[in-house]
Amino acid sequence: MDQKEKSIQMHKKWNGKLETVSKTPVKTREDLAIAYTPGVAEPCRLIAQDQSLAYTYTIKSNTVAVVSDGSAVLGLGNIGPFAAMPVMEGKCVLFKEFADVNAVPLCLDTQDTEEIIQTVKNIAPGFGGINLEDISAPRCFEIETRLKEMLDIPVFHDDQHGTAIVVLAGIINSLKITGKKKENCRVVVNGAGSAGIAITKLLLSYGFEQITMCDRHGIIGKDYPDLNWMQKEMTAYTNLENASGTLADALKDADIFVGVSAPNIVTPQMAASMNKDSILFAMANPVPEIMPDAAKAAGVRIIGTGRSDFPNQVNNVAAFPGIFKGALESRARQITEEMKLAAAAAIAGLVSDDELCDEFIMPEPFDPRIAQAVSEAVKSHVHE
Amino acid sequence: MDQKEKSIQMHKKWNGKLETVSKTPVKTREDLAIAYTPGVAEPCRLIAQDQSLAYTYTIKSNTVAVVSDGSAVLGLGNIGPFAAMPVMEGKCVLFKEFADVNAVPLCLDTQDTEEIIQTVKNIAPGFGGINLEDISAPRCFEIETRLKEMLDIPVFHDDQHGTAIVVLAGIINSLKITGKKKENCRVVVNGAGSAGIAITKLLLSYGFEQITMCDRHGIIGKDYPDLNWMQKEMTAYTNLENASGTLADALKDADIFVGVSAPNIVTPQMAASMNKDSILFAMANPVPEIMPDAAKAAGVRIIGTGRSDFPNQVNNVAAFPGIFKGALESRARQITEEMKLAAAAAIAGLVSDDELCDEFIMPEPFDPRIAQAVSEAVKSHVHE
Repeated sequence: MDQKEKSIQMHKKWNGKLETVSKTPVKTREDLAIAYTPGVAEPCRLIAQDQSLAYTYTIKSNTVAVVSDGSAVLGLGNIGPFAAMPVMEGKCVLFKEFADVNAVPLCLDTQDTEEIIQTVKNIAPGFGGINLEDISAPRCFEIETRLKEMLDIPVFHDDQHGTAIVVLAGIINSLKITGKKKENCRVVVNGAGSAGIAITKLLLSYGFEQITMCDRHGIIGKDYPDLNWMQKEMTAYTNLENASGTLADALKDADIFVGVSAPNIVTPQMAASMNKDSILFAMANPVPEIMPDAAKAAGVRIIGTGRSDFPNQVNNVAAFPGIFKGALESRARQITEEMKLAAAAAIAGLVSDDELCDEFIMPEPFDPRIAQAVSEAVKSHVHE
Repeated sequence: MDQKEKSIQMHKKWNGKLETVSKTPVKTREDLAIAYTPGVAEPCRLIAQDQSLAYTYTIKSNTVAVVSDGSAVLGLGNIGPFAAMPVMEGKCVLFKEFADVNAVPLCLDTQDTEEIIQTVKNIAPGFGGINLEDISAPRCFEIETRLKEMLDIPVFHDDQHGTAIVVLAGIINSLKITGKKKENCRVVVNGAGSAGIAITKLLLSYGFEQITMCDRHGIIGKDYPDLNWMQKEMTAYTNLENASGTLADALKDADIFVGVSAPNIVTPQMAASMNKDSILFAMANPVPEIMPDAAKAAGVRIIGTGRSDFPNQVNNVAAFPGIFKGALESRARQITEEMKLAAAAAIAGLVSDDELCDEFIMPEPFDPRIAQAVSEAVKSHVHE
């Protein structure tokens, strides 16, 4: 039975992957009187007097909503809220298994920006954080920005920031190996959707200065047609020479390639045209922008993908569970840029100098230290 | 330590009562590939082709949203969504413990009817049913009615229908004991909010013909001032003689009293003025409309309350878990009037002729047969 069939059978067997359970037994009248009426009126009264006690007496303290409109699910595209559920349930499972954070999937029957914002605002009181997921660009940027302004709990679009954090973690370690300086690196980010833009922003925050973004038509510059508002905004900080051309042109003498785009669009010739000690993250899933063996043969030094069957798996699961664990434990009101940078450094720091090599730049996703390390990194920046 | 203090300590110890857990372990790369990417894409694709498969591959099959705006919580009133959470979490715990139904508390940061409707509609795709809770009247009637029209999953306001079902169950058995005929009974329902109106409606559906509703100012009739639209509507079916007067006037020669109102508003004199073999449900919580010993002394024959420390506890927990269990298992699109009547009969039927007596008209809330019996009753009416 292949993996596809195994997944279908597993989902069918359990009718979905998640369940809600009581932390406290309700087997007697006394249990019922404490967990429900009349006893429950007491914590209600206390919270009515002091709203912050919701963190003491309710699951708000450790529960995240995983919210999607199903508009950009995995590589499947706009498959809608019903079909998005298995992914959101999976995400919730990972929150629990990797960081002991409770998570509830909410797949929305609307793709209207205003309705999504309103709905998330309305369901927020019972949650300690909002993880946005698989919402298409550029709506995702406005939805996240507006919700961050409205809510006093963290709002985090994982497709953007989770991806950016793990990519930066891999790049930090790649720089250590190659001895390259971030200020001097020429970086190409291919794919100008939510992940590509967030990766570019975080690399800029980290101190990279020369970043060129590309999409399927080539290098993005100020005069590029049909940019959305966020892509336009990015042209103020990227491709400062305002070059134009193809992805192949961009890759000539580049030090770092990050692909969040499409299968097989980087040829061996393009990979070979990169600078010495080149670093390449081919994250298209399941088929990367170039297969690792082909990139290696073309002279690329460090290669990462999103896949578990090659070395250097760059997987969001290293970031989001610990990010929310730290934010919830410290009652952070936002996930700041500093927290994201600290999280990336913390992930990178889990690879010891002894272990660090071309084929081992990232800790294994199941390394039990990750969530704790990321959580501590987030917490250390709560009051900045 | 008293019950209040015990409840506070328990809620504090656990930081709320509910948690989400995975039905399937995620301990290896293979687990991850099946529960999440890339394997999860397969059930997504299948649901995208056929939306009804959401019931096969996702938790929609067995998960209910417990939705409140915190406007009418227990006897505490409008305490808002944060303070309502302990009650909604408790409700979710009961869904799981009594009927193995997963439930998620959603406390809404709005008390606007349109926004509530919109929000519930938007979060509906991942859920198999919506349990509305502690929403004040008359908004609750419009919210429920409109959502029932919009959604293809059951929407059930438990304060209305759960209460009505358990009251009817108690009355069915009280009629058996006293030999009274429903057609001849004079019924007084005191309290004209969500519960009082729903009880009245279900008693009418069951076949009672002479029902008088009262509120704090007395008997409700066509000329009563300041009625909301639903109370006005009820005057077409109740108090057919269009009487006016006080609750005391209404109770004279009444056969059945159902109070969902306020503590101690029925005096022994009023109770004594009722018909022979009178039946009295004093459901105000925690202090009933009249204490059972006082009612007994005044000559009332059968007495029920909402409390666990007196005989004949009339508790919603006998109804809602089984109602949703049956609706989910049969994929009912609505909870119909027939299902509610059948559920009440099923609850009443669990008291055998041998057991049935003045002090034992209801099965114990923890009777493990209840959820199954109610569920079967609901399922037997799915295709009517």
